[in-house]
Amino acid sequence: MTARKTSTKFRRPSKTKAADIGKASPAIILVQPQMAENIGMVARAMLNCGLTDLRLVNPRDGWPHPLAFKTASGADVVIENARVFETTKDAVADLHHVFATTARARDMTKAVVTPNQAANEMHTAVADQHKCGVLFGREAVGLHNDDVAIADSLLMVPLNPAFSSLNLAQAVLLIGYEWYQLGSDRPPLVNEVRLDTRRATKKELIGMFEHLERELDNCGFLAQPDKRPNMVRNLRNMFDRADMTEQEVRTFRGVISGLVKNHQK
Amino acid sequence: MTARKTSTKFRRPSKTKAADIGKASPAIILVQPQMAENIGMVARAMLNCGLTDLRLVNPRDGWPHPLAFKTASGADVVIENARVFETTKDAVADLHHVFATTARARDMTKAVVTPNQAANEMHTAVADQHKCGVLFGREAVGLHNDDVAIADSLLMVPLNPAFSSLNLAQAVLLIGYEWYQLGSDRPPLVNEVRLDTRRATKKELIGMFEHLERELDNCGFLAQPDKRPNMVRNLRNMFDRADMTEQEVRTFRGVISGLVKNHQK
Repeated sequence: MTARKTSTKFRRPSKTKAADIGKASPAIILVQPQMAENIGMVARAMLNCGLTDLRLVNPRDGWPHPLAFKTASGADVVIENARVFETTKDAVADLHHVFATTARARDMTKAVVTPNQAANEMHTAVADQHKCGVLFGREAVGLHNDDVAIADSLLMVPLNPAFSSLNLAQAVLLIGYEWYQLGSDRPPLVNEVRLDTRRATKKELIGMFEHLERELDNCGFLAQPDKRPNMVRNLRNMFDRADMTEQEVRTFRGVISGLVKNHQK
Repeated sequence: MTARKTSTKFRRPSKTKAADIGKASPAIILVQPQMAENIGMVARAMLNCGLTDLRLVNPRDGWPHPLAFKTASGADVVIENARVFETTKDAVADLHHVFATTARARDMTKAVVTPNQAANEMHTAVADQHKCGVLFGREAVGLHNDDVAIADSLLMVPLNPAFSSLNLAQAVLLIGYEWYQLGSDRPPLVNEVRLDTRRATKKELIGMFEHLERELDNCGFLAQPDKRPNMVRNLRNMFDRADMTEQEVRTFRGVISGLVKNHQK
């Protein structure tokens, strides 16, 4: 990594407007994060999911740190607004519900939830004007039991048990992703991309079928009367499934004519 | 990054047993990946989610590459078994259902699915003994339209529209995560009744496309060079959507030959 390039662009202006983002979204709390690069990558993953409240407990490399801006890849709004706390207790002081991420079961009597369940609980909490946060431990070490004890629930990501270690930004991304998917103001996904065109009418489709079948009769492809009805049905079914547009019907009629007419010259 | 340290531990023994992993899980296909580090991080994210079939189309830095082992953080089984292909077409030849990840809408008529929907469809396909794969484009550039055209569906991850760019490994992680969450004990979705037949492989479909395009070249339908690529892509997209069976591919090749040959007598 280019640890030398610390001088420039330390506080470049943010490209993303904070106003775009819901204010009540959960806080992401990194406890004793070690590498500033990882904090930047966390900021990027957070903003991907509409999260902006980043809190750092006693970051090893100090704060602010230019490498965090570098790896945030433009999520500067998150980095600029990050707050530093001395202790985990201080960092969660204003929150109503705290989740502690953990890769292993702890000897504590706490509810264990998946990211999806946590996202559900957080949306419910936010709707009730409650503030939530998720604690993440130090890279490769995780949270101390004392930090876990502060939390209301344990959050475990179900992954391949033989190989479940995630880096910090990926763990944040999965939890943010579930939060975002459940969000209410998310723009609906269109099911199909179809520009400047419309679905073909049945009349247009049938015209195309009859065109094809006429030519297939002409060339002898449908010459066996006992097989013809089934062949025709199968071909029509196949094209029906393609959900053709009006433009595609015209193109395919051009294909039929093209294949046939060339040889009639 | 330590690009110098290429000599040692190039093929250290794998820590994870391949036998632990489901054999029918989807393939992850990276088209022209640039940085070997990213390939390693993709391998790690794959194994987190129980995926092991990694395919590389024309990787810029060559393959195998020591930096990929380094960033795979122990997911060596994925790196060791990765296969390299010259073209995307070759890489998907044995697959029945292919998703193309894309960050933006394309001017193509294809279904658009979320990771969750794609995971559902892939589990259904695997239950039917069909093989699936997901295409990922080059870092920061994405897939070419020609690669997208090979796919059956577009896969878009719903994220903060003001800041949606993910790195390669994170995109793979989110899709693998949805795949893993849906697990193998999920009751299969039965979307289609299709007896005594199987879905066409990409190789069979591409053979059919090339047959059609050859004849359309012969008859002059594709004679305008500036319009040809778009025409070809649109036709392929249309047939892709029809989810053709192997029997239908043979029938349609008979249709093409029938329309052409009659006039050659």
